[in-house]
Amino acid sequence: MIKKPTPIVNTSISQKNINKMKGLCQKWDMDFRPHFKTHQSAAIGQWFIAQGIKKCCVSSVGMASYFASNHWKDITIAIPVNILEIAEINTLAKNIQLSLTVDSLETCVFLSSHLQFSVDLYIEIDTSYSRSGVAYHHTQQINEILELINQSPLMHFIGFLSHSGNTYDVDQAEEIAKIFELSKERMLTLKNKYSTQYPQLIISMGDTPSASFAQNFEGVDEWRPGNFVFYDLMQLQKGVCQNQEIALKLSCPVIGIYPERGEFVIYGGAVHLSKESIEYKNQKVFGLLVTHNNRELDHGFPVHRLSQEHGIITAAKSFLKTLKIGDLVEIVPVHSCLTADLHSHYLCEDGVVLEKWKEC
Amino acid sequence: MIKKPTPIVNTSISQKNINKMKGLCQKWDMDFRPHFKTHQSAAIGQWFIAQGIKKCCVSSVGMASYFASNHWKDITIAIPVNILEIAEINTLAKNIQLSLTVDSLETCVFLSSHLQFSVDLYIEIDTSYSRSGVAYHHTQQINEILELINQSPLMHFIGFLSHSGNTYDVDQAEEIAKIFELSKERMLTLKNKYSTQYPQLIISMGDTPSASFAQNFEGVDEWRPGNFVFYDLMQLQKGVCQNQEIALKLSCPVIGIYPERGEFVIYGGAVHLSKESIEYKNQKVFGLLVTHNNRELDHGFPVHRLSQEHGIITAAKSFLKTLKIGDLVEIVPVHSCLTADLHSHYLCEDGVVLEKWKEC
Repeated sequence: MIKKPTPIVNTSISQKNINKMKGLCQKWDMDFRPHFKTHQSAAIGQWFIAQGIKKCCVSSVGMASYFASNHWKDITIAIPVNILEIAEINTLAKNIQLSLTVDSLETCVFLSSHLQFSVDLYIEIDTSYSRSGVAYHHTQQINEILELINQSPLMHFIGFLSHSGNTYDVDQAEEIAKIFELSKERMLTLKNKYSTQYPQLIISMGDTPSASFAQNFEGVDEWRPGNFVFYDLMQLQKGVCQNQEIALKLSCPVIGIYPERGEFVIYGGAVHLSKESIEYKNQKVFGLLVTHNNRELDHGFPVHRLSQEHGIITAAKSFLKTLKIGDLVEIVPVHSCLTADLHSHYLCEDGVVLEKWKEC
Repeated sequence: MIKKPTPIVNTSISQKNINKMKGLCQKWDMDFRPHFKTHQSAAIGQWFIAQGIKKCCVSSVGMASYFASNHWKDITIAIPVNILEIAEINTLAKNIQLSLTVDSLETCVFLSSHLQFSVDLYIEIDTSYSRSGVAYHHTQQINEILELINQSPLMHFIGFLSHSGNTYDVDQAEEIAKIFELSKERMLTLKNKYSTQYPQLIISMGDTPSASFAQNFEGVDEWRPGNFVFYDLMQLQKGVCQNQEIALKLSCPVIGIYPERGEFVIYGGAVHLSKESIEYKNQKVFGLLVTHNNRELDHGFPVHRLSQEHGIITAAKSFLKTLKIGDLVEIVPVHSCLTADLHSHYLCEDGVVLEKWKEC
């Protein structure tokens, strides 16, 4: 029985999302290395295993250790190496096929003198997102990093990795496709340049918005999207997913009803949904209420304010009339990755509880 | 040794903040019932106990249960009752002096038939914040709630409670003081109206911004601020606190340095800081870097973008030149309540680890 804010996963929707993304990878002959930072759950990892997926990607050493203890033997940590966790990295490298991400000489120098077991290395490339990565045109820096990697018996260069996170910053399908195209072009230029010397090198890319709108993945060897396992309001707004593909909702108890204000209050705040917001129909929203009569979200009621534990929702008077204290309502989160991160388990619609990783 | 994003508490600053707030309460003869939703830590609770504080306030039943198991025997849950947790509420009511917050007849009807042990009840009043609470002028609704409470042998009305959270939405001292004054006036009107019938009734208010700017607390019986235990960038910007009163920072490893962009990247993202942002010097920021040479924050470097695990910081070229991969930098969070909530422990500057509550 649900008593407090609880993330609810629709198993069959999520499994369909996985299957669809796997289909995209098969169609374009890309290795599917899903990013598990979204769900962070070994139980959901099993859904991927059931579909034949054997590689995954994570965004922290802690998460890698969790999945390594839960059947995953080929893991990429897709964030520049945090050298302070070298002990944990060595433990992982001893036990699994570990790939790390580097974008600096300094980190490679550190790794060459501190690694105790063999690892694969991606050089991260900044194709346009400007988060991390060697700028795509800095081939001299790439050459210097490669030289260092080649001097180490424990470091094995496997290819170039990029993430076009800037597809999250635009709303139109064409803009998303354009960002992907530009990134891919820059990655393929590098592939061409270095493939004589490194014929096995791969190009690893991946983000959920591009998966829906890009037209041509030719030349991409590995695909690493994450959010698609759940999708969310942000993706729905961009047209990246459909209503019926959203697999995560937050179930919250109603604790206050204020017909005069046209509002009600849920127990479910910033610590349950996250403070991620979007402009939705000219209003800042932190989530959208779905009802069984209205799964289309077009007329969903917005969570328009959030305190630490309270969520304030505007709703039609007719809806408020039917609402009772203690009712559970379901909220579609703005950004499922951040909402999921706040919880230590999921509840499936059939009552099964799924454990997940929780940093401590 | 710090290896990953870690919240650091300055014990002496925090204890001074507690002492100062206690002094304000003594000066105005208010009962001090600090809100523990900010720190959520039994160890920090001990700092209050050491200063003679015996009552506290929380924002969930789970948090109340945690503090009840950690020496606290007089706890207010300052959010409208979540009736789905009635079993846990009864357990608490059996073991401690529990006070609940109600703002509807419906909840009182439920409590009157489901409570098994005696509780104190505050009627929450919405003085202007429009979150939860009976609208201050709806005395008929107040009367109806009181009538119900009086019919139950287990419910004991103790007074009116309000929270002026709208002081967080304004920036000027005068505006904050004005919101407090208006709220107090409305609360005192109720106190006057009902004190003949309920001579013991108390007025419970409290928020951190008002504590710094209100001129006159006369008539307020109980004071429930929370954020002051740490303060943060939001409070600094309002002038609610000084630089040297901020007691919480997030220590984060440097994982990427990009001199050409004038930026560096920390392992420390939305899941470590929260997505709470403010406009600071005409820029959206998610935190501000402090250095040992520059504790004044006036020239602090802004965390201007956040991914799930990455934080992107703009910094002066001269600073970037001194920075090394693996360095730890300290970030002042925008909203300490939300940053603290994301972690399962604090590290004190003297190396002591403080455990805290973590919902699961």
